Parts: sequence; structure tokens; C-alpha cells
Amino acid sequence: MQFENYIRDIQGFPKEGILFKDITPLLINPEARTNCLRILRDSLNGEKIDKVVGAESRGFFFGMLLAQELNAGFVPVRKPKKLPFDTISASYELEYGSDSLEMHTDAIRKGDRVLIHDDVLATGGTAKAVCELVEKLGGEIVQCNFLMELTFLNGRDKIKQYPVFAAVTY
Amino acid sequence: MQFENYIRDIQGFPKEGILFKDITPLLINPEARTNCLRILRDSLNGEKIDKVVGAESRGFFFGMLLAQELNAGFVPVRKPKKLPFDTISASYELEYGSDSLEMHTDAIRKGDRVLIHDDVLATGGTAKAVCELVEKLGGEIVQCNFLMELTFLNGRDKIKQYPVFAAVTY
Repeated sequence: MQFENYIRDIQGFPKEGILFKDITPLLINPEARTNCLRILRDSLNGEKIDKVVGAESRGFFFGMLLAQELNAGFVPVRKPKKLPFDTISASYELEYGSDSLEMHTDAIRKGDRVLIHDDVLATGGTAKAVCELVEKLGGEIVQCNFLMELTFLNGRDKIKQYPVFAAVTY
Repeated sequence: MQFENYIRDIQGFPKEGILFKDITPLLINPEARTNCLRILRDSLNGEKIDKVVGAESRGFFFGMLLAQELNAGFVPVRKPKKLPFDTISASYELEYGSDSLEMHTDAIRKGDRVLIHDDVLATGGTAKAVCELVEKLGGEIVQCNFLMELTFLNGRDKIKQYPVFAAVTY
């Protein structure tokens, strides 16, 4: 059961010239999904995790499963104005302009051991912004954890001070 | 461990006059979250489920956990243009105007036994649209499953042909 076989290439999504990696076939197959979850979890070598932080919204999928598996809290990081309580925010660059992400101020406590999860490490902009949010609240980043890494975009360079794991690289 | 104690009232979100039920304290507490997950699962009385369908994006949280717990596939239903493969769509009414939801055409197979999950049953518009999508593809709806139900909005009326479960009602 190679979970990679359940990631599907979609040409031209969300726009022409982009090859999108679609993980919905992986979400739909319990065996492949569980196999992938174990690989993501085992990358931690038993390190204790207090909180798993998942980025909106594809980071919610395996982020939630990891939190449950690790008996850790789950913290959603969301686009502006989606979180209802007091928030802090961090911005990141897009191809044109910038965007920002928010986290609840009570989501991380000082000294929390944090696993950051997202579906894909691309340019690293999102991951870097999430790391900033966690550290603003005093969390310790144990690992940045991804389902997939698009190595040609060199996203690791942006988060090189942290351990980085990706279950599959392209 | 009463999971309801981990749902927090936020006055005036997303706009004035609305009392928002914030589930992030529940997501962050592994014990309360697991308690809630068991209640959602046990409501099925052991019925076999092939696919759990979760609505974007707060339906992804417990939807994923339920899918993993039930050894079922997880199917995300998303806002327009978020899903990369071939989709079908269903529209639903908003206070002013309408919006629509999409599902991949290969997400449900004829005869699949489907659990629909969302965080909240409010007016029932979203749930009804999700039911339509599932039935368009030949799925059999075993239950519409919610973390919370806002009974004063009478959402059950819109989906009365299906079994409905909510872990907590307001």
C-alpha cells in the first residue's frame, strides 16, 4: 500500500501551467490514508508533542489525524477574519502582493512542543508564517511536517532553522 | 469530561447580533475531543459507513476523525473552484442571495453508505445541499451528523427525510 499512488496529478489547476497534486484519492482510501498517517507520525521518533498546528484548509486533514494519534491539541491557523476569538497574525508573500494568516492568542502556551503540519511545502511562505505565529506565543517548534514537498521551489530554505519532514517529495 | 464545556460563546461574530459557537477549545483538548468523537460515532449504533462527507471547512475536523475511526473514506465538500478534479455542484440559499458547494464526481459510488458531518446544523441549507450532492452520485445517506444544532433555526425541517444526530443542542 504505497500511499503515493493515491496522490493524483491535475494539469492546469488552479491555473494554466500548474501541476496540482490532488490528495482527495488519499483521503478516500482508509488503508492508504492510515499508511500515510503512520509515516507522518513515525517521523517524530516518539518525540512528545503538545499541539499540532494545521494550516487552512488542507492542513486540517492530516493535522487532525496527527493530533488524535499523538493525543495532542489541534490548532487551526486560518485566513483573516475566520477565527472568532482574539488573534495574532503573520503575513507572507504571494506571487503578486501578500496575504496573512491568523491564530488564536490562547492556542499556544509558552513552552508548548509544537508540530506544524500542512499538506504541501511549496515556496515555504505559509510554513514560515505559521512558525512565526507559534514562536510569537512562546511555542517550541519540534518539526515542520508535510505530506508532500515540491523540492524545485526550495521551500526548505525559508524554514531551515527547524527540522523538516515530508512524506513524499517531487 | 463534558465536551460541551469546551464550546465557547463569542458575541458578535461574524457580525453584530450573532452568538457564535467556537469549537477551537474543543479541538485543543484531546480528552474532550475524544469524548465528543465517541458520542458522534456511537450515535451510529455500529451501522457500516463507506464514506464520511465533511463540509468546508469546520466539517473537516471531526469529519476526518470520524472517517478514521470508522475506517471509511473521507470526502471533502468545498466552496466553488476549490476542488481540482471534475465536480458536481448544488446551491443553497443565504440570507441575501445564494452560494454553492462542490463535490468530486468520483467521490461517491452508487450504493455507498454515507455519513454526512458538519460542525453545526443551523438553517439546514448547507446540509441539504450536501445531501443532494451525495444522492446525485447514488449514495445512500445513513445519517446527517452534527456537533451542534441551533434548534431555533429549525434546520431539521430541511433534511427531515434522513436520520439526524447532534451531539449538543442549543
